[in-house]
Amino acid sequence: MPVTEPDIVGELQEREPSGYLLASVRGVGQVDLQPLIWTGLVILAALWSAGWEIGLFATLGTLVSTATAYALGVDRSNIVLGLQGYSGCLTGIALVISLGHHPATYVLAVTGAVLCTVLTATLTTLLGPYGLTALTAPFCLVSGVMVLGAPSFSRIWNGAPKQVSSPTSGETAISWDDLWHAFFTNVSQVFLVDEWYVGLIMLVGLALAGVRVVLFAAAGSVVSIVAAWALGAPTEQIREGIYGYNAVLVAIALGAVFLSGTVANGAYALFGAVASTGLTASLTSFFKPFGGHTFTWPFILTTWALMAAVPLLPRLRRSD
Amino acid sequence: MPVTEPDIVGELQEREPSGYLLASVRGVGQVDLQPLIWTGLVILAALWSAGWEIGLFATLGTLVSTATAYALGVDRSNIVLGLQGYSGCLTGIALVISLGHHPATYVLAVTGAVLCTVLTATLTTLLGPYGLTALTAPFCLVSGVMVLGAPSFSRIWNGAPKQVSSPTSGETAISWDDLWHAFFTNVSQVFLVDEWYVGLIMLVGLALAGVRVVLFAAAGSVVSIVAAWALGAPTEQIREGIYGYNAVLVAIALGAVFLSGTVANGAYALFGAVASTGLTASLTSFFKPFGGHTFTWPFILTTWALMAAVPLLPRLRRSD
Amino acid sequence: MPVTEPDIVGELQEREPSGYLLASVRGVGQVDLQPLIWTGLVILAALWSAGWEIGLFATLGTLVSTATAYALGVDRSNIVLGLQGYSGCLTGIALVISLGHHPATYVLAVTGAVLCTVLTATLTTLLGPYGLTALTAPFCLVSGVMVLGAPSFSRIWNGAPKQVSSPTSGETAISWDDLWHAFFTNVSQVFLVDEWYVGLIMLVGLALAGVRVVLFAAAGSVVSIVAAWALGAPTEQIREGIYGYNAVLVAIALGAVFLSGTVANGAYALFGAVASTGLTASLTSFFKPFGGHTFTWPFILTTWALMAAVPLLPRLRRSD
Repeated sequence: MPVTEPDIVGELQEREPSGYLLASVRGVGQVDLQPLIWTGLVILAALWSAGWEIGLFATLGTLVSTATAYALGVDRSNIVLGLQGYSGCLTGIALVISLGHHPATYVLAVTGAVLCTVLTATLTTLLGPYGLTALTAPFCLVSGVMVLGAPSFSRIWNGAPKQVSSPTSGETAISWDDLWHAFFTNVSQVFLVDEWYVGLIMLVGLALAGVRVVLFAAAGSVVSIVAAWALGAPTEQIREGIYGYNAVLVAIALGAVFLSGTVANGAYALFGAVASTGLTASLTSFFKPFGGHTFTWPFILTTWALMAAVPLLPRLRRSD
Repeated sequence: MPVTEPDIVGELQEREPSGYLLASVRGVGQVDLQPLIWTGLVILAALWSAGWEIGLFATLGTLVSTATAYALGVDRSNIVLGLQGYSGCLTGIALVISLGHHPATYVLAVTGAVLCTVLTATLTTLLGPYGLTALTAPFCLVSGVMVLGAPSFSRIWNGAPKQVSSPTSGETAISWDDLWHAFFTNVSQVFLVDEWYVGLIMLVGLALAGVRVVLFAAAGSVVSIVAAWALGAPTEQIREGIYGYNAVLVAIALGAVFLSGTVANGAYALFGAVASTGLTASLTSFFKPFGGHTFTWPFILTTWALMAAVPLLPRLRRSD
Repeated sequence: MPVTEPDIVGELQEREPSGYLLASVRGVGQVDLQPLIWTGLVILAALWSAGWEIGLFATLGTLVSTATAYALGVDRSNIVLGLQGYSGCLTGIALVISLGHHPATYVLAVTGAVLCTVLTATLTTLLGPYGLTALTAPFCLVSGVMVLGAPSFSRIWNGAPKQVSSPTSGETAISWDDLWHAFFTNVSQVFLVDEWYVGLIMLVGLALAGVRVVLFAAAGSVVSIVAAWALGAPTEQIREGIYGYNAVLVAIALGAVFLSGTVANGAYALFGAVASTGLTASLTSFFKPFGGHTFTWPFILTTWALMAAVPLLPRLRRSD
């Protein structure tokens, strides 16, 4: 997210609506903290390959969030980098998965995408003094609140079409087949999708963003599998990517975006990836009694905590 | 709350205890964010009309909170505007409703009112850097903690006399009779009272504070009814004002107090009123497992979130 | 914690590893907010007297947290005062009590102690602008998350060896025998130990730190017993120190460390001690549905709230 690419920004501000569409495509890539247009395009293709409903709602959410940012007068250089679209993208996906494909879901997705843009501004104000960014917290807040409240409203709730996720006890023996599935679904679960080929396409998109990005994404996926196995998590959950998508995001964020490329920083990033793996189980237990959702909270909380610590830990250094 | 009325302040600082009594009456009006003495008086009368227990505990809470502020040396110009009394007012009402009319409830109401003044200072310190105010959060924190802890203590707990509120599933067909009841109880439920005539008297008090105040209160009530009906909330809950009192407060706060009087700001205020209506169901689901209470949290969280976003949304403008 | 002892600091920075060991011993005393080396030694002896497992894990946690602080380059003058060790100390104890004495518990205790040092930096960054310190929050966060997540992981979870604590309804008649047991266990429960003689030894350690420290520790213990009895808490819980250890910490923190020694400040400290006693029941009810733990949260939240209020309450004054 700190990537500024000043010439691209200047160029985009000139021409609309292509500027709007480009900003939206970048928004899809910003879910993985990458502003590169090609990364966004490949990930968008991966989402459509996962199913037309997921592709459609991801697209809808991103477009509405980005348009809302224009309408409310958000700083233009921030919009063109896609920083106003990624929460709407995830909110669209989360709502269609949690509530099913119904007319009311379209209304909620649009409302949710608008709210994401407002909450992005809220969190930017609140976190700014600490040098932290909103990450995907607007998505987690908006989708969490909507999915939590939905069963109270008869014109919205048509019964849960599918449970989003929850670690339970289960078999812990792991096979080679489980391992490589987990490696890719850890990447696709960032977008709430558990298809290995979707994760593979997304890794290609991340590779376009740079070697360091894809290496840390892969390393985050690997260490989370090792950690989850060593702790004794159920194989079924590991295979579906439940224990790894937060680690992938933490590894990208700390390893390739927010911290400079030193060995100590890299070790810190992977330590964070492991911590987020354990935190996933704790947060899921926390959310269970009241029906909340884990979403990307483990990534967000881990990254905020580890980034806020950096100013007092001189062995580590921010990238900017 | 930003209304300063400097001459009145100067005048009040001279003579006590009439200054103390006036500050307390204003405190009752500040629950609806209005410092006008006549608004406070009319609302206080409405509370006594709802029942002597409610009137008594509202009065007791306001007097103790305000007196505590004097004793602890809180800035005098802040006290005389009633800003130290409104949380105590609501805490008194919430405790007598939740715990029943017993000797122990008086002790708790006094303790709670003292705590409200301390927590008002706490939140002012914490929120000040963001340009946010405490709103009714001291009330929600103190009453929430006390009601949550009460069943553990045998000398306090006499069994719940009445459930404060909780949306459940139910009939969603709505009649004209339901509609006008809801319109008024949305206003009275701000003070945890579900009598339509109490809401009517309070609206008169708000009208004294200004046309814009009463119009936004009414508009907040209307949009919350429309939103709750459109979402499919149970009619019983809508009629009792459960889904609308937060919307009334949000509409007053954003539409008539904190933001300037532009069309965009007005639309933003009503958008917030709708958001708080949905948030009410989510927070009630969140609080249910551990026995917490929704109180005015939807209003507080919505107003904080929307106000903190304003500095980054140039289409909107603060009133000061 | 504001005690600086500049000459001792200078002296310690010279020679290692004795400086490392002294910093760790001070870390044990800093659980009670005391940097004095003798206090740390006496408390450490008390912990070993409570059982070799508790003594061992307290020592391990303190040593690892302190070593991590050196490794990450935390400010040296902060380390030598023991401010990087106390959360690791408590985390070690909490994990061996909650998870039992197993090989995996050693791994978790080391990981947890490392995380405590990171989170101490995180909270120092976040709380610094408000003049607040981390207190034992890193311990509560790390231990809370680990104990909450543990049952999801089959290679960690061997069944709960003992329930850490939870107030339930019960007999409220209280005898002299209950009273003096409670007085001492209130002190030992700060370290999750409910043996009266351990509390007695710890009080001796606190007496070495100064008359004011031990007097406020004792006063906090007494007012919490009176408050818990007056509220009607179960005698069994009072006797085991469940309702009093937070009050002891609040009384020490506000009465003898953070505020200057005036009568108003002393009354404020004991008011806080009573508030934390009530808050203990509320937080335990809050944590129950999802299996979280109260630990020292009532102390932390009460102290943060009351300290953040001080700048706006001129009758009270900070010690520095």
